[in-house]
Amino acid sequence: MRASNYLFSTLRDAPTDAVVTSHQLMVRAGMIRQISKGLYTWLPTGLKVFRKVENIVRDEMEKAGSLEVIMPGVQPAELWQETGRWQKYGPELLRLQDRHGRDYCLGPTHEEVITDLARNELTSYKQLPMNFFQIQTKFRDEVRPRFGVMRSREFCMKDAYSFHVGAESLQETYDVMHQAYCNVFDRIGLDYRPVRADTGSIGGAYSHEFHVLADSGEDDIAFSDSSDFAANIELAEAVCLKEKADAPTQDIAEVFTPDCKTIAKVAEFLKLDVTSTVKTMLVKALDENEQPTIVALVLRGDHNINEIKVEKLSGVVSPFEFADEADIVAQIGCAPGSIGPKGLAEKGIRVIADRSAAVMSDFCAGANKDDYHYTGLNWERDCAALEIADIRNVVEGDPSPDGQGTIVIKRGIEVGHIFQLGQQYAEALKATVLDENGKAQVMHMGCYGIGVSRIVAAAIEQNFDEKGILWPESIAPFDIAIVAMNYDKSEAVRNECDRLYAELKAKGLDVLLDDRKERPGVKFADCELLGIPHRLVVGDKGLEKGTLEYKHRKAGENEDIAIADAIDFILNKK
Amino acid sequence: MRASNYLFSTLRDAPTDAVVTSHQLMVRAGMIRQISKGLYTWLPTGLKVFRKVENIVRDEMEKAGSLEVIMPGVQPAELWQETGRWQKYGPELLRLQDRHGRDYCLGPTHEEVITDLARNELTSYKQLPMNFFQIQTKFRDEVRPRFGVMRSREFCMKDAYSFHVGAESLQETYDVMHQAYCNVFDRIGLDYRPVRADTGSIGGAYSHEFHVLADSGEDDIAFSDSSDFAANIELAEAVCLKEKADAPTQDIAEVFTPDCKTIAKVAEFLKLDVTSTVKTMLVKALDENEQPTIVALVLRGDHNINEIKVEKLSGVVSPFEFADEADIVAQIGCAPGSIGPKGLAEKGIRVIADRSAAVMSDFCAGANKDDYHYTGLNWERDCAALEIADIRNVVEGDPSPDGQGTIVIKRGIEVGHIFQLGQQYAEALKATVLDENGKAQVMHMGCYGIGVSRIVAAAIEQNFDEKGILWPESIAPFDIAIVAMNYDKSEAVRNECDRLYAELKAKGLDVLLDDRKERPGVKFADCELLGIPHRLVVGDKGLEKGTLEYKHRKAGENEDIAIADAIDFILNKK
Repeated sequence: MRASNYLFSTLRDAPTDAVVTSHQLMVRAGMIRQISKGLYTWLPTGLKVFRKVENIVRDEMEKAGSLEVIMPGVQPAELWQETGRWQKYGPELLRLQDRHGRDYCLGPTHEEVITDLARNELTSYKQLPMNFFQIQTKFRDEVRPRFGVMRSREFCMKDAYSFHVGAESLQETYDVMHQAYCNVFDRIGLDYRPVRADTGSIGGAYSHEFHVLADSGEDDIAFSDSSDFAANIELAEAVCLKEKADAPTQDIAEVFTPDCKTIAKVAEFLKLDVTSTVKTMLVKALDENEQPTIVALVLRGDHNINEIKVEKLSGVVSPFEFADEADIVAQIGCAPGSIGPKGLAEKGIRVIADRSAAVMSDFCAGANKDDYHYTGLNWERDCAALEIADIRNVVEGDPSPDGQGTIVIKRGIEVGHIFQLGQQYAEALKATVLDENGKAQVMHMGCYGIGVSRIVAAAIEQNFDEKGILWPESIAPFDIAIVAMNYDKSEAVRNECDRLYAELKAKGLDVLLDDRKERPGVKFADCELLGIPHRLVVGDKGLEKGTLEYKHRKAGENEDIAIADAIDFILNKK
Repeated sequence: MRASNYLFSTLRDAPTDAVVTSHQLMVRAGMIRQISKGLYTWLPTGLKVFRKVENIVRDEMEKAGSLEVIMPGVQPAELWQETGRWQKYGPELLRLQDRHGRDYCLGPTHEEVITDLARNELTSYKQLPMNFFQIQTKFRDEVRPRFGVMRSREFCMKDAYSFHVGAESLQETYDVMHQAYCNVFDRIGLDYRPVRADTGSIGGAYSHEFHVLADSGEDDIAFSDSSDFAANIELAEAVCLKEKADAPTQDIAEVFTPDCKTIAKVAEFLKLDVTSTVKTMLVKALDENEQPTIVALVLRGDHNINEIKVEKLSGVVSPFEFADEADIVAQIGCAPGSIGPKGLAEKGIRVIADRSAAVMSDFCAGANKDDYHYTGLNWERDCAALEIADIRNVVEGDPSPDGQGTIVIKRGIEVGHIFQLGQQYAEALKATVLDENGKAQVMHMGCYGIGVSRIVAAAIEQNFDEKGILWPESIAPFDIAIVAMNYDKSEAVRNECDRLYAELKAKGLDVLLDDRKERPGVKFADCELLGIPHRLVVGDKGLEKGTLEYKHRKAGENEDIAIADAIDFILNKK
């Protein structure tokens, strides 16, 4: 590509709404432009990277035996009504009507459509396992689209769906997909981790997310420092090695704690370590007669509640919701800041303590009376009927749940997610095949997503410096830039540039020849901002000496190379 | 690809709603499935063809210097309001609202979005000309989607848009695009014609359509039998070589024509040749004070009105609309079947005769009195104040408008359309660049569309037989099928098939190895239905003789080839 025929659209400054690095750099490097909230045009530089990611994903999916299809983006409501998701899916599902008033949605995912296809096209166990993928535009009407293409409303996903007789076959394909995903991220050259994850609104029993590690990640990933255990913090089990509480050594005392609205304030006021306090939260639940009630959750003062774990407790309403303050005051007689476990059971309220809270002794907790707390509280002596569960987020230093080492937490950007869906969609849509005995069997399903557009942003979050992007070679918009000094004026420069351009292109490299009438500083800055890995500068001074100036994007210094060696030099660097 | 891992989904019968061959064959060959009216999933066989078309289109666009981008499918209403198309575009534009109640549409085309991009990114004449393309999913809410992917609601288009200072630069890029389109259709191997065309709702001054010739085409294309003249019948000029009418030889006579509601009936009843009759139609118009009125159009009895030509006449309302019957009866005093030109001017009605009608003499026409016609009518003698215009469709045998030869009409499927848009969109969106003198200039624009999904269907309409599809080699789903006889039972067959499969794949061929446990007849029928150009049959009987059986999809007979020569034989056939 000759720069004089190319659209750079590089900018000195990022727009004010761009708060993460990848968003800033993608706009500044002329990769994307927003046309409306969460809707982006991919400019030539952005699309070149996008296509390279797309091609790696397609290639690995094909190698893994998945068959490519394309399903419509506009999906009929009837299919979503069959699975019940037309009602259940929130406002992220953009619903619309056609000219005849029929209901459709813009597909945020394709379980319904593919399962409908499978029930029509797959009839015999002989056809299975079968795995389909598509690379397709999705729409999710995010309430707050942000971070550029990282959380846009329209985006590109590779989604795959596999069909099986039996869970064993599903597990086999799941493992193949797990490996294919590792291959994709290895080939792109990203530092990533597969982690155990919650299955969320897609459902299913077993799932892994693939995270690109980056400080700007939205997710917390818990790792073991001594094994390959890795899980999204949503899911990572919080283990407590201590088996039971020590015997009480203090008497219970009611103390005045004025204006202490948080457990941190209470600890500070009473000069206690926060780890010797508990906090008690009341959340909405249903009793055995399905009537609304509240449940108390008790955590050590320094721990944080894990809403996903709580939602899985029997009786607790999902999605997670705190009890209304008015109900708390009515039932307990104090504001939420003074709630504690003592006496709740007597009022008919279930008390569920986190594993780590349940082994505490001589602790401090709310006295269920405004502005008062207890100290010297002990479970067995002072509180009735306790349930114990894992309801908190793991923290650094926790023992790893696999028994090896302790937990370290890093931030990650989710770029892939694979699920064992089991039979839920196939059951809802009655997708069966005949087995070896001629009996109809509901198929088992897996689903496997990769955020193609999101990978582009995640790669930047992991690879940038103050000058711009540091692309992995596999997905750089150009492999090499030839920067011409005075291309218009110097015939020698022009001839050498044209020769290098033709020869490097003939070797299969994606070459940018910067033949623009711009100052060298502008050209170098564009090269660096765009993150082109290799750069050759061609100028009259060097040509007189028989040299070109080479610089790798990540190297500090230029080096002079002999003209005659240039092509081999570059090919060796690749 | 091994057939045992592939999804065939071939069907013996086409669905009853499939009325055109390509739709029938695409469903039967397992290329597409409808999930809702006008919404299709592309199955693996269909998508393989689709991708081959897409890649040829992309390659030729890049060679022609166009830069690939991707714009969103969901477009904000504001841009369409700026050009006025939010109001003007009919119900084919699917309008929708997001969760915040903001208006959007599903893009049927992208003039607004690209012009918005251009006004932001293009600032100087130095950047021009600039040509962008995308290969993207479009949505048009067709009132009656039909013919499979030929007229579906969701479809894939390559659309390109070029930006220029001045009409001359636009013409240069237009010519480059014209050639690129020819390259695309030549490479695919289709019998096509570029034809002059009307610019329709996209607007602009100058345009060509690219038509694949096929009997099932929706468009009539007029060609010269002796030159390269070709135009859509909507646009082709109807020339009349006769300069004026002959002198009258008959007296005018009013004749009773009971129950003759059409001109054909009148001619039959009066035993006249229909070419000596005229038909007179009244259409809605506005007078010089912009008040509703009607205008009379007179054509020779065997000619058909061309609505697009009529819409361009001054005063006539666009879109074309016939006058209401009640108005006709009120103003003329008879039903539409008895209207004729004599006496209309006296009633204040403009009479516009087609060129061919205007040179007739001694003709028959309605007498403006129910069930009566005139014979022996002559213009100058009997009718006042006549306007003459080209208002009919050309017919076979008409002189070619370029003066060379006569017109032949063939049916075509429109697969591409290029337009010189001029400045209308750039003016509406204030898209300017600074010229050499630092003065703001409104850009000139071209736009260039190819229906990627439609090409797949059009290629079938032109290439099929009673057994199935006859793909051009360039876009066949597989280059060659190796049909194994008893792959599961015969080790010799298995070894030879696996060898051929590996070697042909290594030569870069797209190979289908049919290793299924199916009867040979089923495998042959699938091969033929899918239209795979080359077929090798591997069986024990042949192997004993040292031969394989080769058949080209279009050949009548099989031929035996020596195993040792097989690879070279196939490569020579390609």
